[in-house]
Amino acid sequence: MKIAILPGDGIGPEIVTQAVKVLNALGEQFEMETAPVGGAGYEASGHPLPEATLKLAKDADAVLFGAVGDWKYDTLDRPLRPEQAILGLRKNLGLFGNLRPAILYPELAGASTLKPEVVSGLDILIVRELTGDIYFGQPRGVRECPDGPFKGQREGFDTMRYAEGEIRRIAHVAFQAAQKRDKRLTSVDKANVLETFQFWKDIVTDVHKEYPDVALDHMYVDNAAMQLVRAPKKFDVIVTGNMFGDILSDAAAMLTGSIGMLPSASLDANNKGLYEPSHGSAPDIAGKGIANPLATILSAAMMLRYSLNKVEQADRIESAVKKVLAQGLRTADIYEEGTTKVGTEEMGNAVVKALA
Amino acid sequence: MKIAILPGDGIGPEIVTQAVKVLNALGEQFEMETAPVGGAGYEASGHPLPEATLKLAKDADAVLFGAVGDWKYDTLDRPLRPEQAILGLRKNLGLFGNLRPAILYPELAGASTLKPEVVSGLDILIVRELTGDIYFGQPRGVRECPDGPFKGQREGFDTMRYAEGEIRRIAHVAFQAAQKRDKRLTSVDKANVLETFQFWKDIVTDVHKEYPDVALDHMYVDNAAMQLVRAPKKFDVIVTGNMFGDILSDAAAMLTGSIGMLPSASLDANNKGLYEPSHGSAPDIAGKGIANPLATILSAAMMLRYSLNKVEQADRIESAVKKVLAQGLRTADIYEEGTTKVGTEEMGNAVVKALA
Ligand SMILES: CC(C)[C@H](C(=O)O)[C@@H](O)C(=O)O
Ligand SMILES: CC(C)[C@H](C(=O)O)[C@@H](O)C(=O)O
Repeated sequence: MKIAILPGDGIGPEIVTQAVKVLNALGEQFEMETAPVGGAGYEASGHPLPEATLKLAKDADAVLFGAVGDWKYDTLDRPLRPEQAILGLRKNLGLFGNLRPAILYPELAGASTLKPEVVSGLDILIVRELTGDIYFGQPRGVRECPDGPFKGQREGFDTMRYAEGEIRRIAHVAFQAAQKRDKRLTSVDKANVLETFQFWKDIVTDVHKEYPDVALDHMYVDNAAMQLVRAPKKFDVIVTGNMFGDILSDAAAMLTGSIGMLPSASLDANNKGLYEPSHGSAPDIAGKGIANPLATILSAAMMLRYSLNKVEQADRIESAVKKVLAQGLRTADIYEEGTTKVGTEEMGNAVVKALA
Repeated sequence: MKIAILPGDGIGPEIVTQAVKVLNALGEQFEMETAPVGGAGYEASGHPLPEATLKLAKDADAVLFGAVGDWKYDTLDRPLRPEQAILGLRKNLGLFGNLRPAILYPELAGASTLKPEVVSGLDILIVRELTGDIYFGQPRGVRECPDGPFKGQREGFDTMRYAEGEIRRIAHVAFQAAQKRDKRLTSVDKANVLETFQFWKDIVTDVHKEYPDVALDHMYVDNAAMQLVRAPKKFDVIVTGNMFGDILSDAAAMLTGSIGMLPSASLDANNKGLYEPSHGSAPDIAGKGIANPLATILSAAMMLRYSLNKVEQADRIESAVKKVLAQGLRTADIYEEGTTKVGTEEMGNAVVKALA
């Protein structure tokens, strides 16, 4: 089985190194090949997603991705900026199904800005559609405003769109995920304003007929943003579009106060996937050896579970992570008095040791 | 001065009654005229925004609005649903500038789901553009998907757009609001993905030249959703588009845990405005006399301040509200042990008494 390793920028290389170490400690045979992406891709060959990197990702059975981005690329033209690599990978690999768990580990309850009783035991799964919506819809650009009171001025515009099949396939992913959990799915839309999301709501309602064992409810996105703050534990699985999912999954992740712990999977129709931590490239702490590698290590576990069909090995990694937390080991981002502060590499080594 | 009173549905009539009582207790002469809107408009004349109601709102100097919506209208066609009234009023009256303060009163710090140290003293102002963006952009609808892998299927679609002048005018509102506060403005966009919001960012940056005394920063909407949870007190004024503003202003309101306290103003180019509580019509508690009227009473204060140029009277109402909170009076939504639980009318009466 071949894994493409794309470390990227900032803390990406450091945290991916630890995840690779953990994978290698499982006693399995993986073929791994590394390629530059994001700012590193741009430095290497003038494009954030070099052709060779894309080819490697396409040919592999799964992709382990670090993080991309650095302020120094802010002045580049948009198509050359690091984050275009991630959009390009999603689109080219057809990774439409983004799974983002927001889990609060009991040991880390104190890290949240929310009161412990509101978040302790939090365990939600956000299923975000990742290759459609206003992210990729055409036409888009800057043009002359065609009508209305601002006619003749310049205007920026984009197209939001979802085809029936696009909604159906992400709905299936979400219903099936809910079946494996508490069997409750909340579909988040803005059907009171947007045609796209009235259509979304209708199709999700239709797909629901195939999953009578799952309880479905619909919620407007503004209300969902409120309920995530008010009573996040009431959610089980949330499914939504690319744009709303971008906002809500980050908000949900931040509820835990420990975004350095949260993995993600982006899957295609055959469960091939790209796995990456939910956090960013954190250029301010890059190279200091203090970044939290656990989100990336847990992303590797998701990779074993969803793409490589090694559920037992995934379980082993997840147990090992729980063990190091129970041992009181903490990187700086989740450190509290009374625990033991460790660096990136020490944390990776501790997970390897805990695997045994 | 003429005020259009649009109570609407659910708890709307009860809470508006209290605000009207407070206005009448100021010893000023206001001409007030009431008209049905939302579900009540539909019942009265088959449309959520009856023509006579729209005319009244247009002719008035300001509009005091309760809330609209009830589950019983969920099955109506979209153009007939209650919330279309609010969209229609915004568009027809040109109410492009939505001001939504998120303030946590010290007495109510316990009501928040966030830790007191994270939210106590919270005082942010969200400036949301209200008549543009994907809310009103054309074309929109359901059509045959014109291209790509889903070609030929049905697809829902909408158009996001912002013309230069639309961005400029809301930016001016936001910079001027910031000048009266802590002189810090965060413009929230998704310039890394959307053409509309790269354009937005460029125009806001340009308008900034006229406000050198205000510190401007730009933040992606997903990050803004995170920062609101992580460290909301770091914000002063936030300006953003209609769609992102819908989501972020509700999230910010919920941070306070006391959305029953939060007013809002929606202004046109001449400071004529519509004023409404930030919360909804709460049909589940309608008619029970337990709804919190303070958000509506504080909306009336905003009306005096922004549209009717009666700043002193606005101050009087706001002081009276602080006084009743200090007296320990609480409606059910903000009740805590050790305080005195009161109903809607008692709360209104207490504010009137505190005005004296
Ligand atoms: C970097 C950016 C384009 C991306 C997105 O908006 O999808 C990121 O925020 C994410 O959620 O992975
Ligand atoms: C009712 C709905 C159309 C409206 C909106 O989305 O603007 C509401 O959520 C609001 O924020 O006032």
